[in-house]
Amino acid sequence: MKGIRKITPYVPGEQPNYSDMIKLNTNENPYPPSPKVTEVLRNFDAEHLKRYSSIDNFSLKKALGIKHGLSPEHFLIGNGSDEVLAFCFLAFFNSSDPILFPDITYGFYKVWADLFQIPFKELALNSHFEIAVKNYNPPNGGIIIANPNAPTGLFKPLVEIEHLLKENQEVIVIIDEAYIDFAGQSAIKLLDKYPNLIIIRTFSKSSSLAGLRVGYAIGNPKYIQIAESIKSSFNPYSVDMLAENLAVAAVEDKKYYEEITKDICATRDWFTKIIEQSGFRSLVSKTNFVLLTHPDLVIEELYHYLETHDIFVRYFPKIERLNNYLRVSMGTREEMEKVYQLMTNYVLASKK
Amino acid sequence: MKGIRKITPYVPGEQPNYSDMIKLNTNENPYPPSPKVTEVLRNFDAEHLKRYSSIDNFSLKKALGIKHGLSPEHFLIGNGSDEVLAFCFLAFFNSSDPILFPDITYGFYKVWADLFQIPFKELALNSHFEIAVKNYNPPNGGIIIANPNAPTGLFKPLVEIEHLLKENQEVIVIIDEAYIDFAGQSAIKLLDKYPNLIIIRTFSKSSSLAGLRVGYAIGNPKYIQIAESIKSSFNPYSVDMLAENLAVAAVEDKKYYEEITKDICATRDWFTKIIEQSGFRSLVSKTNFVLLTHPDLVIEELYHYLETHDIFVRYFPKIERLNNYLRVSMGTREEMEKVYQLMTNYVLASKK
Repeated sequence: MKGIRKITPYVPGEQPNYSDMIKLNTNENPYPPSPKVTEVLRNFDAEHLKRYSSIDNFSLKKALGIKHGLSPEHFLIGNGSDEVLAFCFLAFFNSSDPILFPDITYGFYKVWADLFQIPFKELALNSHFEIAVKNYNPPNGGIIIANPNAPTGLFKPLVEIEHLLKENQEVIVIIDEAYIDFAGQSAIKLLDKYPNLIIIRTFSKSSSLAGLRVGYAIGNPKYIQIAESIKSSFNPYSVDMLAENLAVAAVEDKKYYEEITKDICATRDWFTKIIEQSGFRSLVSKTNFVLLTHPDLVIEELYHYLETHDIFVRYFPKIERLNNYLRVSMGTREEMEKVYQLMTNYVLASKK
Repeated sequence: MKGIRKITPYVPGEQPNYSDMIKLNTNENPYPPSPKVTEVLRNFDAEHLKRYSSIDNFSLKKALGIKHGLSPEHFLIGNGSDEVLAFCFLAFFNSSDPILFPDITYGFYKVWADLFQIPFKELALNSHFEIAVKNYNPPNGGIIIANPNAPTGLFKPLVEIEHLLKENQEVIVIIDEAYIDFAGQSAIKLLDKYPNLIIIRTFSKSSSLAGLRVGYAIGNPKYIQIAESIKSSFNPYSVDMLAENLAVAAVEDKKYYEEITKDICATRDWFTKIIEQSGFRSLVSKTNFVLLTHPDLVIEELYHYLETHDIFVRYFPKIERLNNYLRVSMGTREEMEKVYQLMTNYVLASKK
């Protein structure tokens, strides 16, 4: 057969789904979406679905504009930040120079670069697992960095992001802020000064809407329009009618989300502190997950031990520097107390 | 700025949205989705949305498998047939020989070929606006044909589709069956004999779920897996949780959809007949729309006349052979009676 793409068949990871499990392996939010989201869902008339969804997603762009203090044309809406990122790769990374991203970061950057045949260079994190901003210099075909980074959880202050933008003004620099609500200052305030900045956001983490598939890019309208043209040439209606309506309701309930985000950060800080008292070591997380290790344990064994107790966390056997680490998404305080107990018992048992 | 894609900024067509309008411009279904779809929506617990949607869409594949008498691995599910088609173009059209499609067909085939830099050749419809199957011969890089074709509405019998598959066994032949439920025999029964066949379906037309964004491909599991790998490398969760659940409910209510499809076909056949009595000429449609013209009218003027009466139909000024045709989607019988009256009055007035 002619013309078939040569691609390694992808086998999706197992997604456990038991009623009693504690699912801490994909950085989902342990809290439900805002009651306002539920209300919009309850009142949605299914008959509307016979019509195509909005092609410009204007109502969501408008709501986001109010939230971020920007005009609607600063936004591109897509089917999760994955689709938005894919469109941005197609729109902005067309140089013969390699794009740059960290060797340890969101695994999909490399997958898109491969799929679209974009040359790339992975730059090593430093010995503290930090992104070495000083190494991201021209010539390059563009830059993408997650801030906070995943799966490290480490956060770069704005001054370093600005340095990156300043040194690379001839290319697009994408800052993936999937976890920013758990962290600190967004790069949004740099938009005016740096037209080369594109920021990516998602409703899957802090907005508790992973199953709804909505994400967005924020940037200079001139470049957003290019990415919008890619979307229009690929799948113009990718955000369905329910998704757009529910996402608007989420954007408008700022108070609810501030509260649950605060709770998650408090659980994270408490969990990090108490788990270190049992001998674990962790990176300083500014996300809704913690990357941890233990000097005396074979982490893979702990991973399987937790699994036998229906606690699912993430282990990265293929990333050499992380092959004795676990990434633990933050559940509710109650869930994390169980996890803490189990992990501590495991340490004690392993010392005998 | 380096690396920015050169692409003509796409300006989406206007989507009118008045309460009293009759919207016949995008081939949507005039009837609501099945009551079973409404029921699933009503009972859906919004809290589920905090988790990622299914990565393999197994429940929908299973339901479709039962419907079509095939195993689940024959299906690829995507965010509307647009996304499924985009994945199939990336998966199957990687030859240096041009892919073939009709010069008058779904406009997006050319857009994807351009976006992915796939060489292509548009083959002219014959003088009866039919796809000239005998011209689709090797060497080529693959073939895509809509059956029934749009915007002509004409349907090819299975024997001609089989001829196409037989003559082109070294490449993938995609049959886009978006409108098949309004037509006749699907190519599904040829799947066993021709592993080069990929069939595309959508929930946007006969299933009244345009706003939900679900479509699928049916094919040999070996090739479906390649397209699935493209999906997994692009946006693995593109079908959201609500979309999958509601689509399953639609698949399971065969009876309701058979009834509304029958109604739409009856309205189409009645409308075609009666409008021809007013001097209009139409192609024999096997879809939920009719392509029509009138020997004594400047169709563009009729288009604007209908618009001033809040009736929106489709006009193709850029397609030379169609620039005196209108494409009219089928509304309810009541709506089409109004449209008929207005068009007939217009003809009478123009004769004075």
